[in-house]
Amino acid sequence: VHYWLGLRQGLRLGLLVLLCCLALCPAPVQGDKVLVMPVDGSHWLSMKLLVKELAARGHEIVVLVPNTSILIQGSDYYRTETFRVPYSKAQLDENVNKLKDAAFLKAPDVMDIFVNVQHLVHFTTMQVKGCEGLLYDEPLIQRLRGEIFQLMLTDPFLPCGSILADSFNIPAVYFSRGIPCGLDEKAAQCPTPPSYVPRLFSGNTDHMDFLGRVKNMLMYSLESYLCTVMFASFDELTSRYLEKDMTYRELLGHGAIWLLRYDYSFEYPKPRMPNMVNIGGINCGKRAPLPDLQEFVGESGEDGFVVFTLGSMISQMPEEKAKQFFDAFSRIPQRVVWRYTGVVPENAPDNIRLMKWLPQNDLLGHPKVKAFITHGGTHGIYEGICNSVPMVMLPLFGDQGDNVHRMAVRGVGEVLNLFDVTSDKLVEALNKVINDKSYKEKMLKLSAVHKDRPIEPLDLAVFWAEFVMRHGGAEHLRPAAHDLNWIQYHSLDVFTLLLIIVLIVVMVTIKCCKVCFRKCCGTKRTMKKKKSE
Amino acid sequence: VHYWLGLRQGLRLGLLVLLCCLALCPAPVQGDKVLVMPVDGSHWLSMKLLVKELAARGHEIVVLVPNTSILIQGSDYYRTETFRVPYSKAQLDENVNKLKDAAFLKAPDVMDIFVNVQHLVHFTTMQVKGCEGLLYDEPLIQRLRGEIFQLMLTDPFLPCGSILADSFNIPAVYFSRGIPCGLDEKAAQCPTPPSYVPRLFSGNTDHMDFLGRVKNMLMYSLESYLCTVMFASFDELTSRYLEKDMTYRELLGHGAIWLLRYDYSFEYPKPRMPNMVNIGGINCGKRAPLPDLQEFVGESGEDGFVVFTLGSMISQMPEEKAKQFFDAFSRIPQRVVWRYTGVVPENAPDNIRLMKWLPQNDLLGHPKVKAFITHGGTHGIYEGICNSVPMVMLPLFGDQGDNVHRMAVRGVGEVLNLFDVTSDKLVEALNKVINDKSYKEKMLKLSAVHKDRPIEPLDLAVFWAEFVMRHGGAEHLRPAAHDLNWIQYHSLDVFTLLLIIVLIVVMVTIKCCKVCFRKCCGTKRTMKKKKSE
Repeated sequence: VHYWLGLRQGLRLGLLVLLCCLALCPAPVQGDKVLVMPVDGSHWLSMKLLVKELAARGHEIVVLVPNTSILIQGSDYYRTETFRVPYSKAQLDENVNKLKDAAFLKAPDVMDIFVNVQHLVHFTTMQVKGCEGLLYDEPLIQRLRGEIFQLMLTDPFLPCGSILADSFNIPAVYFSRGIPCGLDEKAAQCPTPPSYVPRLFSGNTDHMDFLGRVKNMLMYSLESYLCTVMFASFDELTSRYLEKDMTYRELLGHGAIWLLRYDYSFEYPKPRMPNMVNIGGINCGKRAPLPDLQEFVGESGEDGFVVFTLGSMISQMPEEKAKQFFDAFSRIPQRVVWRYTGVVPENAPDNIRLMKWLPQNDLLGHPKVKAFITHGGTHGIYEGICNSVPMVMLPLFGDQGDNVHRMAVRGVGEVLNLFDVTSDKLVEALNKVINDKSYKEKMLKLSAVHKDRPIEPLDLAVFWAEFVMRHGGAEHLRPAAHDLNWIQYHSLDVFTLLLIIVLIVVMVTIKCCKVCFRKCCGTKRTMKKKKSE
Repeated sequence: VHYWLGLRQGLRLGLLVLLCCLALCPAPVQGDKVLVMPVDGSHWLSMKLLVKELAARGHEIVVLVPNTSILIQGSDYYRTETFRVPYSKAQLDENVNKLKDAAFLKAPDVMDIFVNVQHLVHFTTMQVKGCEGLLYDEPLIQRLRGEIFQLMLTDPFLPCGSILADSFNIPAVYFSRGIPCGLDEKAAQCPTPPSYVPRLFSGNTDHMDFLGRVKNMLMYSLESYLCTVMFASFDELTSRYLEKDMTYRELLGHGAIWLLRYDYSFEYPKPRMPNMVNIGGINCGKRAPLPDLQEFVGESGEDGFVVFTLGSMISQMPEEKAKQFFDAFSRIPQRVVWRYTGVVPENAPDNIRLMKWLPQNDLLGHPKVKAFITHGGTHGIYEGICNSVPMVMLPLFGDQGDNVHRMAVRGVGEVLNLFDVTSDKLVEALNKVINDKSYKEKMLKLSAVHKDRPIEPLDLAVFWAEFVMRHGGAEHLRPAAHDLNWIQYHSLDVFTLLLIIVLIVVMVTIKCCKVCFRKCCGTKRTMKKKKSE
């Protein structure tokens, strides 16, 4: 009996403890499931920040990774699903090298836009094949479809993510710096008047004279053609896979939110749509200490140091070109931290520290940094802005030429050309941005405006991703313009009707006048005739 | 000697206490000075919230008040400066009554827009005279000019604030629901394609059929004319006072930030500019308890209660009209809280509590509220949305017709006409919005979307006002479109040049073809002739 009494007492106590535990312990964070389809390379670097933050907030994340991945790696924060693509890493590299070599070896000219487009078409055609590798991987797709995701987070530079979102019937959030030929703004139904919104590769700012506006209009018209050429393979894949008559642009128009990696410290003010959210500077997070480099940069004295990198894709350059840089750096008092894995000349100066990879943002945040030599990718530019570091910019390809142009007109940096850069030009530009105080002053102002915001870009991105999950989309931000065709949107049918009405009124009025005139004159003549008779 | 020792000791101690005080006590918040030029009436009610918040954050505020003020009163939060206007309160009331009577006594028709414009012109002409009372009050203006303000916060519905901002050379922040004939969007260079952005008074939504788009285009064209008529006195005052050739629209274009009292739970999605900030629902603050009404509404049982007000301007109506309401309320099981100061019939039912003024937002936040009878001002509509209360709407004038239309198409309320409202119609509409669950469900969804925002509207408004003070404006958000004239903006000069070039090319080609054709044929003919010879 005592035993049973003890057992009952014990059970009661156990139950009590269990109940207390259930009442007191918080329920595990029950997040939603997010499918992520990134674009490899530097595009991934800032998207990863959002992915990690979403994971940290309890969302379950699955990242789709091609087996040729360069920068997308596994993590404790998210699960990866790898898919096979029908090309090798070497073939991918070859593509990038073509672009890179062009920048080093060829003087830029007007026809570059066509060469750029050609390279881009080559690149995207390859990527579309990669995308097919995923879409037609039936077992993987079936498994993913079964998992029921609440959100597709994707970079619309490539079509795979938005096609999957449509196929899985889940809302999409786009994470983007922009899409060639302004397809993002076209897809979002955002007006971009060519009279003051400069087109890519036009070399214009937002203030154009008459000839500038003519050039801009020509580029704007050219874009329609380029869009057709560049996105033909996207259009074909979209309509084939989704089995409906739909272009890639139309597909993109169904995205819930556009998270755009720019703000107006960098971009010129222009119209936007309610579902466009600016998250420029999202990559400019908190700084970490510099264990390896602390001594080298910390002891750089009054003259400080310079950071030099040409981005995540490029760490080498032709030997002759590299020599110019080594020579230039030997002639400046600053120390230099340079991401470079190429051939080093024998007499390389000892104020240079060569790195395979460098903590760019941490270095730019160091108090002794004096200048930033960059290729002008948006990540680097924003890290330069938020750390207020004047820049010497050497654009390579893509949007970089336009990026550096934006910084140069704001007076916060100098632009050089990789094709004809010499040590003299380099030294001159570096001395200018370091010693002419106006560069630093303007950069400080730009930085102040950029960093003065009601909410941090990463928090804003997280908010909108979660908003879309909470409400199953952002239907209330979708403009009715999506339901109009080109003629209707521009009211051409309405104008035609109104013109016809005006013409009829004018013609009837003229007819009436003529009849009246004839009657009057006729009567008069008759009267005159009668009188003369 | 002891005395001196004691004195020294005392002084030392005193100094120590002073130093401690200086070190420990926080420095008083040294805010900037803000000049506020409000528009009287309901417009002030939400602007006051921002003014109070700015004051609470340490900014020194001066509010300019006409001596005929209806709702703008003094406060501990801000200083007021009163100016004399050349009309009496009675004359002002007469103006409002004209608008009100029209709503009660006349069936609405197509020509209302012209009547509305006529009333508005009458009203604004009066207000311009009031504004002159301020601008030409030399002693007051000199005093204000001497105070050196960092910001002008103004409602651009009337011109006084922006004229003063320009004259004092301080940046302006606009607090606005919108300006008639879309002058706000025109001034901000914001595109509003008439194919899907419905014009005021057009009765359109953002989804229009062909005839709807024709109507919208006609209204859009009409607006240009109306703008000229309505703002002629504003234009004249602007250029006269500032002694430069400038329209009111151009003046408004110099504003730093537009704080717009709407969001996309109410407004249709449409393009916006970077300096437009949505603060819809700013008036929907925290609820206070209901000391006077707690018993009446708290004991309303299962059936709950209805809130009825026609806004801050109107608390009476013609006796015959009021009877319809009393009769309707006697036939519903709900209690009614009604802002009404008119004649009460003898057999008035006892489920009605009549009030001179009612705590609208606090009542709408009560759990037992079932419906909201409103005239459809944006304040009331947003309080309805954020408290998820279905509405019966009786628009009076101005934007109210369009406001209620927006709510009706979202299925969260019913619209009645004050002109022909009967007790039967009222009872039917009330029963519908209370008993048909779809109204409440849709309202809950709308409310969820409205309240799900990364930052509260009041905080956002404060941020941007302070941003403008910190940076002396928001120049980086000003689109270059401001520097273009109409022809340049629409690229008409560029099109003309391109057209001429195309025509020349075509003509030259035709000419060449003709010459070639003649030569060929000519030769053939000659050869034929020769052969025949």
